Order: sequence, then structure tokens, then C-alpha cells
Amino acid sequence: MKNIDDLQAMIDEEIRTQYRILEPNELYEPIWYTLSNGGKRLRPVFVLMGCQLFSDQLKKAVLPALGIEMFHNFTLLHDDIMDKAFMRRNLPTVHIKWDVNRAILSGDALAIQSNIFIASCDKEVLPDVLRVFNTTALQVCEGQQYDLNFERREEVSVPEYLNMIRLKTAVLIAGSLEIGALIGGADVHWASRVYELGDMIGMAFQLQDDFLDTFGNPVTFGKNIGGDILTNKKTYLLIKARELANPQQLSVLKHFYGSEDFDHQEKIGAVKKVFHDLGIDKITIEMVHEFSNKALKILSEIPGDPERKVELEKFTRNLMDRIR
Amino acid sequence: MKNIDDLQAMIDEEIRTQYRILEPNELYEPIWYTLSNGGKRLRPVFVLMGCQLFSDQLKKAVLPALGIEMFHNFTLLHDDIMDKAFMRRNLPTVHIKWDVNRAILSGDALAIQSNIFIASCDKEVLPDVLRVFNTTALQVCEGQQYDLNFERREEVSVPEYLNMIRLKTAVLIAGSLEIGALIGGADVHWASRVYELGDMIGMAFQLQDDFLDTFGNPVTFGKNIGGDILTNKKTYLLIKARELANPQQLSVLKHFYGSEDFDHQEKIGAVKKVFHDLGIDKITIEMVHEFSNKALKILSEIPGDPERKVELEKFTRNLMDRIR
Repeated sequence: MKNIDDLQAMIDEEIRTQYRILEPNELYEPIWYTLSNGGKRLRPVFVLMGCQLFSDQLKKAVLPALGIEMFHNFTLLHDDIMDKAFMRRNLPTVHIKWDVNRAILSGDALAIQSNIFIASCDKEVLPDVLRVFNTTALQVCEGQQYDLNFERREEVSVPEYLNMIRLKTAVLIAGSLEIGALIGGADVHWASRVYELGDMIGMAFQLQDDFLDTFGNPVTFGKNIGGDILTNKKTYLLIKARELANPQQLSVLKHFYGSEDFDHQEKIGAVKKVFHDLGIDKITIEMVHEFSNKALKILSEIPGDPERKVELEKFTRNLMDRIR
Repeated sequence: MKNIDDLQAMIDEEIRTQYRILEPNELYEPIWYTLSNGGKRLRPVFVLMGCQLFSDQLKKAVLPALGIEMFHNFTLLHDDIMDKAFMRRNLPTVHIKWDVNRAILSGDALAIQSNIFIASCDKEVLPDVLRVFNTTALQVCEGQQYDLNFERREEVSVPEYLNMIRLKTAVLIAGSLEIGALIGGADVHWASRVYELGDMIGMAFQLQDDFLDTFGNPVTFGKNIGGDILTNKKTYLLIKARELANPQQLSVLKHFYGSEDFDHQEKIGAVKKVFHDLGIDKITIEMVHEFSNKALKILSEIPGDPERKVELEKFTRNLMDRIR
């Protein structure tokens, strides 16, 4: 059985051997720039883990896994234009390094290449794989649109926020796992249970991310702590805090979220204090545990050698452990 | 046997009955705005004509035909951002009516919806249909990139130009016909011959368009005559003229293409005179005839009831008749 590091290495190796910069160079160079810049390869690893639940023939799932990684990178490429992001994984984003036209068109080409890799799966499972992939892909666009909408809105409710992160993040993890399961030979029933499992992992994953951005350990988190607060991002923490705050706490939040012109540490400190006083850290931890435990329950029900489940279980437990 | 008008009506009717504006409205409204704004529905009609060459069961090809129309509209939506186009079919383009972000994201969603409709074909032909569709889709992006590259370049050769219009325009017509043929039950050999046929029609179609923009009849052409000349567009006419021009004619072209600050009619008149003196009109007509005749030859070789070929033959002959 392969562990996550093995699977990541498999993906990295395949990207290096499979990907060719074709002509016109102007179209394909930004794609290679994006794909070769690493990242955790989380989604393709989920495809392989989904396959591994049912089969040892991971080879069958590798190209579709690459397709998922390409799709994910396509969404990042276009999202970075929409979000006016300057940097991605410590390098300038495509629309900054080249221009917006190059980012739009190479993103489109990358999306089409992702379809080509997805369609390379066995003929027998192709209709089901496409159904899951296309549905998921469309939902990711819907999630991005809600995210853009929420930026302009004053109030966002907790259910609205959870629906948005489900569409923007969780469904692609869920879809990746289900596609892997289908390629591994799961029947439609178990494949859709695997999707639910991925959905729960995806929700826990995004909420953990929200938590760590504010309450994480600066040494292990990788990004600067408090980034979401400084950019006035409507995360689960803020939305839940606004829901629970008394008038005085609400006015503190209003004050600090009314502008970006504060001393960074002062703003982060003040907002964190309100969050902490309201128990938002504990509530978020509980949410992550709840989603993770649901995932573990589904995982336990999936038939087959428990060995096949070890990596997914480790990943899910790790989501809880990191924010305990 | 259905004629082109019947087939167009079939497509329009299906778009009206099949398409739903889903939530979030911000994502789907621009898609409906684009799809419902008509156009000639040429590419989906080619899908149906390709199917009709081999089968009476056009119903099987209708949803994939809609997928092709959606894909085409997706490319228009994104091209209009890249080309900074303000109007499309007498309405403001999506990035003007809403904004660039809406145009990028709703374009992405439209591309994904096109995949969903394409994938609705019979399971047996799905792998071949996807192979043709995805290859074609990627080539269309390549064509658009070459088109963008050529705008910035001083010199473009005739073979480079022909390759660009093949990628940007002809392959989608070719792919549409082949997808229809596959759905209609053509074997891989005849399907690929139908692709070649479409390739020839597509080339003739684009060269005819170049011709009509300069030499067309203002009453029947629909667009203003001379638009390509006024916007300094590197069409087949200009590229071929530069190739054949003597130093004096070259300096006339250089003069008028050096700026957009000329009296419109003066510029159009002067450039047209150079084109005409060089016989560019005749050369272009010959090219259109050559491609059309190659198309007719392939069409004549396709087995089956000649009745099935009538509409494609009419369409192809019409390409020649309009510029005779």
C-alpha cells in the first residue's frame, strides 16, 4: 500500500514525464509554469487514495489524477485574475508575469487538457467519471461566484458560507475521491459514499484552514498568521463571531473591519481577542472534529482490507490533530 | 431529410427548452444572455448535418450539437475580453455589460456545460466523440493565441495565416461534422473523411468571410464593408497583397496601414485599389473554389443515399456562389 508521500511523488513524476510544452509557446509556457510550481498535489493524491480503497492498479488512475490537478490549477489561474492576486506559491501569478489575456487563454487550454487526461480512464467507467467530474467542475465555478458575491455583501450567514466552501473546495476533494473509486472498480453505491466521505474531509480541511490562518502556529502554518483578518476576509470565524457577538464586541469588529488602515498587530490582536472571548476557536475546532468524525465513520463502513484505508484515516485524523 | 433552416430551428428550440438559469444567477445570467442572442447556429447545424449523412436519428445528436454551440459561445465570450470587443451581434459584450470577472467565470461555466452536453451522446461513441471534441477545443485555443501573436507582429506569411484560420475556425466546423458522423454511426474511417470535408468547408468559409468584408455586397453582407481594412486586420487579402506588391504598391499599403487616422472611405478605396490591381480578389475567389471543390469531392465519395448529402452540397456551393 502506498502512503501519501509515495503518491505525491508518483504525481510529480508523471507531470514531469507527461507534460510537453507545445506550439504556440505563448499558450503552453504559462501552463507549464503553473503546473511545475508544485503545491501539495492534494487533489490528485485523493484520486489515487480513492482508487487504492478498491484496487492495487493505481496506474489506471494516474492520468485522470493529473487531469484533476490540471483542473485545479486552471481554477487557480483564473481565480488569481479575478482576485487580483499578485503571488501564488512564492512566484508572480500568470496574469502578472505575462498579462491577463495570456492568463485567460492558457487557463482555457489547461482546462481542456484536464478534460483530455480525465477522459483517458477505462471506457467502462468513462460515463460515470465524466458525470462526477463535470458536475464537480461546474460547482467549483458556482463556489467561486458565491465567493465573489460575498466579498461585496455586508452580511453572509453561516449556512451560506458553508455552502460556498462546500462548492469551492469540498466538492473537488469529494469528486477526486469518487473518480478514483470508480476507476478502482467501486460500484456506484460505494463510489457515492466515498464522495460523501470526501465532502466531509473537504469541509474539515477548509475550516481547519480558516482556523489556522488566525490561531495556527506561525512556525508550522507556512503563511503569516492573521492574513485573513488583515484582508477583511469573511471566514467562518468572522461570520460566526458576528452571529454571537454582543453589541460591544460587534462594534469592535465593525471598527476594525471598517478599514485596512490599522497597525497590523493591533488589529490582529483585537479581533483575535473578540474571537477568543466568544469561543470561536473552540467552536471551529468542534466543527472540524464533527466533519472529520463523519468522514471516519463512512470510511469505517467501506468494505475491504483495512490496510487500504490507512492513509485516508491518517489524513483525516491529522486534520483534527493539527488544531487540537 | 431536413434542410438547414429546419436544423437551425431544431437547435433554437432545444436551446430554449434545455437551458435553465441556475443559482447563482450572477454566473448563469451572462450565459443565457449569450446563448439566447441567436447567431446562425452554424456549428451545431454541422453536427446535425454530419449525423444526417449516416442516420435519420438526428435526435441523438441534438444535445451534443448544443454542446458545440455552447463551446463556440464560450470562445466568443473569452475572445471578446481578449480582443476588447464592445459589441457582439448588436448587443454589448458580456465583459462590457457586466465586468471582466463575470465574463471569465461565466465563460468557464459555459465551457463546462458544453462538456456536459457533449458527454450526453451514446456510451459506445463517447470515447471517439471526446477525442475529436477535446483535440478540436485545444486547437481553437491555439488558433486564438496565433491570432493574438499575429496582431503584434509586422510580418505574417500566407502558410502561417492559413494555419491560424484552420485552427481558429476550420477545425471546429470539421470537428462538428465528425462528431455528428460518429453519433450517426459512421465508422472511424468515414468519420475522419467527414472531418477533412469539414476542414475544407471551414477554410473556404473563412476565406470567403475575408473576401466579403472587403469586396462583398453591402446589402447582403450584413456587416459594414471595409471593416477589416479600417482596423488594420491581417487578413488573407492583405498578407497575399504584401507578398505580391511592387515597391510602390507596398508603400501605399504601408502608408495606409501605418495609422487609423484616415478618412474611412479614402483608406478603403486606396487599399481596395491595390488589392484589385494585384488580382487579390480573383486569387481569393480561386482559393475559396479550391477548398470548396475539395470538399465536394470528399462529399461525393461518402457512401450512402445522395439525398443525405444535399444540404452539405448546397451549403458548399453557396460558399462559392456568394463570391463568384
